[in-house]
Amino acid sequence: MLFTYTQLRDFSANIFLQMGCSPEDALLAAETLVSADIRGVDSHGVARLSGYVRLWEAGRINPTPNIQVVHETPSTAVVDGDAGLGLVVAPKAMEVALKKAEQVGTGWVAVRNSNHFGIAGHHAMMALPKDMIGIAMTNASPLVAPTGSIERLLGTNPIAIAIPAGKQPPFVADFATTTAANGKLEILQRKNAEAPLGWVQDAKGNPSTKPNELKQGGALLPLGSDLAHGSHKGYGLGAMVDILSAVLSGAGYAAWAPPFVHFLPLPADPVGKGLGHFLGAMRVDAFRPADEFKAHMDNWIQRFRNAKTAEGYEKVLIHGDIEREMEITRKQEGWELLPPVVADLQQLGEKFGVKLL
Amino acid sequence: MLFTYTQLRDFSANIFLQMGCSPEDALLAAETLVSADIRGVDSHGVARLSGYVRLWEAGRINPTPNIQVVHETPSTAVVDGDAGLGLVVAPKAMEVALKKAEQVGTGWVAVRNSNHFGIAGHHAMMALPKDMIGIAMTNASPLVAPTGSIERLLGTNPIAIAIPAGKQPPFVADFATTTAANGKLEILQRKNAEAPLGWVQDAKGNPSTKPNELKQGGALLPLGSDLAHGSHKGYGLGAMVDILSAVLSGAGYAAWAPPFVHFLPLPADPVGKGLGHFLGAMRVDAFRPADEFKAHMDNWIQRFRNAKTAEGYEKVLIHGDIEREMEITRKQEGWELLPPVVADLQQLGEKFGVKLL
Repeated sequence: MLFTYTQLRDFSANIFLQMGCSPEDALLAAETLVSADIRGVDSHGVARLSGYVRLWEAGRINPTPNIQVVHETPSTAVVDGDAGLGLVVAPKAMEVALKKAEQVGTGWVAVRNSNHFGIAGHHAMMALPKDMIGIAMTNASPLVAPTGSIERLLGTNPIAIAIPAGKQPPFVADFATTTAANGKLEILQRKNAEAPLGWVQDAKGNPSTKPNELKQGGALLPLGSDLAHGSHKGYGLGAMVDILSAVLSGAGYAAWAPPFVHFLPLPADPVGKGLGHFLGAMRVDAFRPADEFKAHMDNWIQRFRNAKTAEGYEKVLIHGDIEREMEITRKQEGWELLPPVVADLQQLGEKFGVKLL
Repeated sequence: MLFTYTQLRDFSANIFLQMGCSPEDALLAAETLVSADIRGVDSHGVARLSGYVRLWEAGRINPTPNIQVVHETPSTAVVDGDAGLGLVVAPKAMEVALKKAEQVGTGWVAVRNSNHFGIAGHHAMMALPKDMIGIAMTNASPLVAPTGSIERLLGTNPIAIAIPAGKQPPFVADFATTTAANGKLEILQRKNAEAPLGWVQDAKGNPSTKPNELKQGGALLPLGSDLAHGSHKGYGLGAMVDILSAVLSGAGYAAWAPPFVHFLPLPADPVGKGLGHFLGAMRVDAFRPADEFKAHMDNWIQRFRNAKTAEGYEKVLIHGDIEREMEITRKQEGWELLPPVVADLQQLGEKFGVKLL
């Protein structure tokens, strides 16, 4: 069974409408959500729709938020998301960053009182049509142990950066600051396969290959895996994302970040409101003429694309290549969803009286 | 033989004076250089002094540069370093970023026509006394192969971020975007020891444990080591640093970045001027009251510092702990330099008529 972008976007928008979102917000949330599926990041798309619904049912999502700038300077703002869907709060906060960049060269917005915002890359890419560099990061449910610890104090805390080019497609990096994202472990669990050493540790902090270690008190590992391979650097990146997204905005940080799953309790002693994001926009022509920059980006990209490959590699990839090619294919051909995801969506549809197909 | 901060700073300043730097620039360069030694980053301090001298002898460093802002908006600037010492150009460019942050909340400065700027953390830390968050990055001599390639297209491209706290010392992360810095391989070569797998690859792109692979056409590996452990993320970070530092400023990027060593030729077909840096400053109170932020940073730091440790770890470290403790010890007790470094400095001293001790 093949799905199209329009089908999944409209279905999701209808579910968000049933949650009580305004038509504009429902469509915006759906577009943000399905931007993950169409780019091949299946873990962050409609597979999570029921998760958002359950958070709403648990009273943790406000479908009619009063999203507002609570503090600002010419180049910065703090946005309070009023517990709205991160899928709506983040793009609206990114609009604030883009406007500030238009006015003074760059715009930087810290967001509090939000929740899961979909894929970071989607928000960063909002800068591209304006010839700006876009940056997006977010903290997330605590699943990652800092180097030397057995406690889960950080989320997978992704960083995305989107940089425009000229004739070449843009450079779009979007990655968790862990060695592997949790979604990859879930796939291995379904296959009953082992994880490579370096992805997770067990409850005592020992290296493990069990993909279900997180259910037994284990933790994801920061990018770098272990100290000898630079895990303190991944820990530093995850910490940076946590601090910029949550300490700077007034959201819940470290192990106080609210979990995405509805069945885990919220922290009893909150240090801030909801989840935090950090969004940035830099006008290219605040540094050099955009055409000049883009011509050099084309040259940069071509140099890497044409680099001599190592054995086992057909080509050297530029960040964003895989997702862009996936988007082209999926737009033309549609795509399959995993049977449990289809069942999940069908259940949601029945519950809310919304047709999936 | 123990050296003190003042001895090494003054010796270095005298050497820079002999190169023709103004007294102010000579002192600034020396302070930047020796800030690496005192923080225990011996690879980036006086051990490199003769390297700067040789670059000057090769006509690649201008001791009396006209460092100027060539383009700006309220929150951004491009600084042309006029081939001056990066040790001087970077702190002067950081002053521009700090001033812009005072005025509009944040300041972002891309620098071209510079060269090696010492440790990134030094420049980022300039923001701390002003209750600002400081960011510094630079591109560097091409030694790193992107994932899937055998070509050295990126430098070790470090990222530093300094974040003020209240009663706790600041959070200061400063790391290369590779698994291990080149300095670590040099230490292993001296010891005739093997490197862990994941630090370098050989000329064909195969994993290697030989610390001298770089001399035989091999390459350093991006943070993550291999694709299964997220090397595409380290490659993405190194690429980001290269683009922000060099493509945005008009410096030499990718394999066109000028080498630090004088005996390697400059690229025959330059795409920009010199090396590039990217420096940022964000006023904390452009987001929330500084006292409030710093109290939460204290809480953040204490939570991590008190986290349960994994076996084999005495405590969980905060970024900046090791270097700060080293600085305290070295300030009080002085420190030893490796015999070849002492010999190198003595030779420099004789050449320029400057006394080392």
